[in-house]
Amino acid sequence: MDTVYLNGKFVSRDNAWISPDDRGFLFGDSVYEVVRWYGGFFFDMKGHMARLRRSLSETRIIWNEIESFPEVAHELITRNSLDDGCSLVYLQVTRGSAPRTHAFPEPQVPPTVYASARRQSLDTLVWERGISIEPVTDPRWNRCDIKSTALLPNILAYQEAHDHGFAEVCFIRDGFVTEGAHSNIFFVRNETLYTHPATNRILSGITRNNIISLAADNGVALVEEAVSADMISYMHEAFLTNTSGEVVPVIKIGDLVIGDGAPGEITKKMQRLFREKVEAWGEELLARG
Amino acid sequence: MDTVYLNGKFVSRDNAWISPDDRGFLFGDSVYEVVRWYGGFFFDMKGHMARLRRSLSETRIIWNEIESFPEVAHELITRNSLDDGCSLVYLQVTRGSAPRTHAFPEPQVPPTVYASARRQSLDTLVWERGISIEPVTDPRWNRCDIKSTALLPNILAYQEAHDHGFAEVCFIRDGFVTEGAHSNIFFVRNETLYTHPATNRILSGITRNNIISLAADNGVALVEEAVSADMISYMHEAFLTNTSGEVVPVIKIGDLVIGDGAPGEITKKMQRLFREKVEAWGEELLARG
Repeated sequence: MDTVYLNGKFVSRDNAWISPDDRGFLFGDSVYEVVRWYGGFFFDMKGHMARLRRSLSETRIIWNEIESFPEVAHELITRNSLDDGCSLVYLQVTRGSAPRTHAFPEPQVPPTVYASARRQSLDTLVWERGISIEPVTDPRWNRCDIKSTALLPNILAYQEAHDHGFAEVCFIRDGFVTEGAHSNIFFVRNETLYTHPATNRILSGITRNNIISLAADNGVALVEEAVSADMISYMHEAFLTNTSGEVVPVIKIGDLVIGDGAPGEITKKMQRLFREKVEAWGEELLARG
Repeated sequence: MDTVYLNGKFVSRDNAWISPDDRGFLFGDSVYEVVRWYGGFFFDMKGHMARLRRSLSETRIIWNEIESFPEVAHELITRNSLDDGCSLVYLQVTRGSAPRTHAFPEPQVPPTVYASARRQSLDTLVWERGISIEPVTDPRWNRCDIKSTALLPNILAYQEAHDHGFAEVCFIRDGFVTEGAHSNIFFVRNETLYTHPATNRILSGITRNNIISLAADNGVALVEEAVSADMISYMHEAFLTNTSGEVVPVIKIGDLVIGDGAPGEITKKMQRLFREKVEAWGEELLARG
């Protein structure tokens, strides 16, 4: 049984229990974060910490020990013997446990903090082959910029696409592509990258933000502009980004083949640049000790 | 410590625990229902059961023992010595516990079923005085007709209104009043009732449905038509309905005083009709034994 972290303690997973009065359970009143361990270091922990801080602040969930997270994450890696290879660390912070009522608990109660780690390799096969995604109406609320666990809309949309044989959804809101159920979406047309701006309609991913920086640093044109659903057929390439998959080529959206149905050149370039950044990140951290 | 129900067993609340791998906790991947016990009987259990069945079917959560719920609810009342007086029974059914991934667990896992009961009297003071509610943009997803626990949007909106001194929110979507964070909203103009139709934009409440029947049965004109936010100032009366409060007069929406700032005549009539229906319901059930 693996070791997880719950409210200040490292315990065996079968000794970790949540109260049914927990607001994470009753209301989806909680936020989360997922960081990737690359056999020796976490990539862009600073970016994840900044987003976590923002999710907490926007939901008014108070976790005073937030600065402990990098250490907790590292400890989970060590205690579960995951030091080598690739893993994901999941963190969830809820507004705590209190008798059920919509209003925030008064007086305030301590948040519930849960974290766990599991091995998850990078799927290099999908990097080479690409995936198909299904366009669906974006059913979500108007604060998709908060990384909350109230994810039922994402779950139902994702499962339906999965049932239809697709690997992810392509959410369309008011005629424009927003993002996936757990990824950001980029398009390429005439060697320019397009992705939805970081508004309330998307969760601006850490990988997304790194791709934007990499484009700027490497002379790749990029516009943070939503692509209209009608324009998808004019796009030459498409890819998804997220922490678990890095940069994943999209070769089909619904019935529509993107480009020539294989990962495109700019996509492969961004994949390579991101891989190099991760490796350089690790070398630098390891050099620093 | 009170007794709760968890996965087929009645246990003390401090012995009831949920796995952090529960999809209710990780994703808000669950539905719920709240029924009211009126010292001797549940009101419209059939209506609540029909809605629960629909919530489960729309989310594709499978609970084979759904027919046991009325008995479980009654048992909670008895075991917690709540037979006399008014209480609420809360039920939550999640897609069960499985390693975290968006897709439904494969193979399927048993749902997590949790229920609890607590004394909650009817607040007759608010029936007489009425409440003030705050108009806010409806932030929710496009399937408000599913009674899911992914309630963070409701929580955040409700808390903000609460901070501003309001007792509930008045959600406005695309210029029209939809409902409250945990209630339906009715308006009265020229002795006609108006309420949002039962579309994907509202959770059609059991009390709401009973009010609609009562209006029909008692010659009160009623139109299931959304009221535009611009029209609120032309309304003569307003009230909320839900299982915990029955019919609650609204005397102010934001800065706007409704009617003469006191519960209106039609509101009081619907309150009375609903009270009479509850009482007749109880008498009939008790007469039947």
